[in-house]
Amino acid sequence: MRRYIVQTLRVELGDRSYSIVISGDMLGGVGPALADAGYQGRVALVSNPTVFDLYGAGVMASLRSSGLEPFRILIPDGEEYKSLASAESIYGELLRARLDRKSLLVALGGGVIGDITGFAASTYMRGIDFIQVPTTLLAQVDSSVGGKTGVNHPLGKNMIGTFWQPRLVWIDIGTLRTLPRREFLSGLAEVIKYGVIWDRDFFECLGRETDKVLGLDAATLGRVIRRSCEIKADVVSKDERESGLRAILNYGHTIGHAIETATGYTEYLHGEAIAIGMVAAARLAGVLGLIDGRQTEKIEALIRNYGLPTTIPGPVGFDEILSCMQLDKKTVSGTLTFVLPEKIGVVRLEKGVRPEDIRKAVDLSR
Amino acid sequence: MRRYIVQTLRVELGDRSYSIVISGDMLGGVGPALADAGYQGRVALVSNPTVFDLYGAGVMASLRSSGLEPFRILIPDGEEYKSLASAESIYGELLRARLDRKSLLVALGGGVIGDITGFAASTYMRGIDFIQVPTTLLAQVDSSVGGKTGVNHPLGKNMIGTFWQPRLVWIDIGTLRTLPRREFLSGLAEVIKYGVIWDRDFFECLGRETDKVLGLDAATLGRVIRRSCEIKADVVSKDERESGLRAILNYGHTIGHAIETATGYTEYLHGEAIAIGMVAAARLAGVLGLIDGRQTEKIEALIRNYGLPTTIPGPVGFDEILSCMQLDKKTVSGTLTFVLPEKIGVVRLEKGVRPEDIRKAVDLSR
Repeated sequence: MRRYIVQTLRVELGDRSYSIVISGDMLGGVGPALADAGYQGRVALVSNPTVFDLYGAGVMASLRSSGLEPFRILIPDGEEYKSLASAESIYGELLRARLDRKSLLVALGGGVIGDITGFAASTYMRGIDFIQVPTTLLAQVDSSVGGKTGVNHPLGKNMIGTFWQPRLVWIDIGTLRTLPRREFLSGLAEVIKYGVIWDRDFFECLGRETDKVLGLDAATLGRVIRRSCEIKADVVSKDERESGLRAILNYGHTIGHAIETATGYTEYLHGEAIAIGMVAAARLAGVLGLIDGRQTEKIEALIRNYGLPTTIPGPVGFDEILSCMQLDKKTVSGTLTFVLPEKIGVVRLEKGVRPEDIRKAVDLSR
Repeated sequence: MRRYIVQTLRVELGDRSYSIVISGDMLGGVGPALADAGYQGRVALVSNPTVFDLYGAGVMASLRSSGLEPFRILIPDGEEYKSLASAESIYGELLRARLDRKSLLVALGGGVIGDITGFAASTYMRGIDFIQVPTTLLAQVDSSVGGKTGVNHPLGKNMIGTFWQPRLVWIDIGTLRTLPRREFLSGLAEVIKYGVIWDRDFFECLGRETDKVLGLDAATLGRVIRRSCEIKADVVSKDERESGLRAILNYGHTIGHAIETATGYTEYLHGEAIAIGMVAAARLAGVLGLIDGRQTEKIEALIRNYGLPTTIPGPVGFDEILSCMQLDKKTVSGTLTFVLPEKIGVVRLEKGVRPEDIRKAVDLSR
């Protein structure tokens, strides 16, 4: 993979607008980009030990050579550290290093690091700037774009958080070479989601280019990540705080989250659970007579061809799924809302879906 | 004091605009106001045991009779409970009660309750609505208006927080009858501040009406609180996130905070420390040749006449004050910024004030 910048996109959000840079083996560009944007002084680089070992030195050097004074804050690897306690330890390090209201945080890592760094940035001294340098596919196409931040509460994932936009998202496709295969595939679930909810052509392109994507072909990956970010940026620009349209990004997430919760977050990676959830939601659309069966088969086939699971595991009972869904923070006043495909590229928000219809869809997805 | 609504003000902040209702013995109006605004279902009333004993039953009954389903969350009394740990316990109660994104929090109490409830509201499920029902003078004229929320960190007060506007501020002047005298006087420091920074007429009115204010005359208090809220709303509307103008509200707070920190928050109430800080800042303006000495004397006299302290205590050394100021979150890149009066009603932001000038002002304030 040669060094290059594929493209720069723009997330339009008024005075909170920002750029997404998609590059290849160009993490060294982060420092100059920040210096150009006028940042100076102390910068906290938040990462985990695994990612920092791989890419930390390069990013630190880039920041230093651009006149910034970086120091690192490492959070142990794993979802269980996405907690208020970790946020509190970040606050302590920022205070000891005397970071002020004009200081900057850099999130270098996957979704956990991005979410917790964004949360810390949004709440330190009532909000300071941060940027995202996502190193997993999931973070690159989903969690780093759109400004959702969060930490988990013992009683629920992502229950504590804010909307706080980064000032820059710097994606380096080169980091995907060191990403475990299973995590890479998990990220592809969100990529496929964009095709189903927004762009039939993209969905079909993913079908034609499956081998190239799975073979980490740089040019193809660049296009796929760019289009994914474009779609997410487009949706987020139209509805930053998820009062309407943005909810379509939750396609596959209602049943997906329930499966994650029911299996204690140990069986499935996020994208794997979402893959199952997308197939189940398509089947639910079928049960409700909203979608043609052949479209559902195409969705299921693409997900399967990308090496992702498509069936709800036997041990997870329907009642368990239902009760998890009712605790989901997307559920308001107990009303179950689903994002359901009408055809590939078009989804609708369906409120008040009846449990018996969900049960039928779940049974069809075993 | 008879039941009445003095006036309703409006804080203009686009889609985050809200009303401030100033009433007398009218806490029962909270429920109907919320029902009118369309709120329904579960509502968490956050308070402390002292305030809840006095006013909790009345507010709960008002909410219930308006069709809402209130439940209480009590935080122990005291600044030490304005912590992330208290926020986490609030999150737990909200989750157990299944509050969702459309739910509402009601803060019933002083600044600690208001700040922590606002912080919890701004971070629960990425932000839910809350209202303020301030029961101390300080909260009524200052902390409940303007959307600053926060909790303390072991390394500094209010270091963690957000800007999150309430949907309504309901002030009941009647609650001031149960407020300890010393806390009432402390709140008057912020009232005097508004006169110095913004409104010479108001300053002089406070001079003429000292006896009535100190005697808790309802009509006078109503006018004084209304004008204080008007000035704060005016400043906040022009600069919500303190990028410029809003900083003038920090008049007296630079040295005031340093004195609070240096004395471990045990010697002075917030307003008392701010009273000392306002006199010291006026003297600093004198040292820098910005203000006429007679104006400084008038400021000091009014503060003294309201029973507030005006001199920096002997045991607090200058070096200690300086180092506390440098840790203040208003300090950016080590530059000390002061709000200094040029005359009563007009202040300026002075950046890069030299420590030797501050020392002179501190010496003059002993």
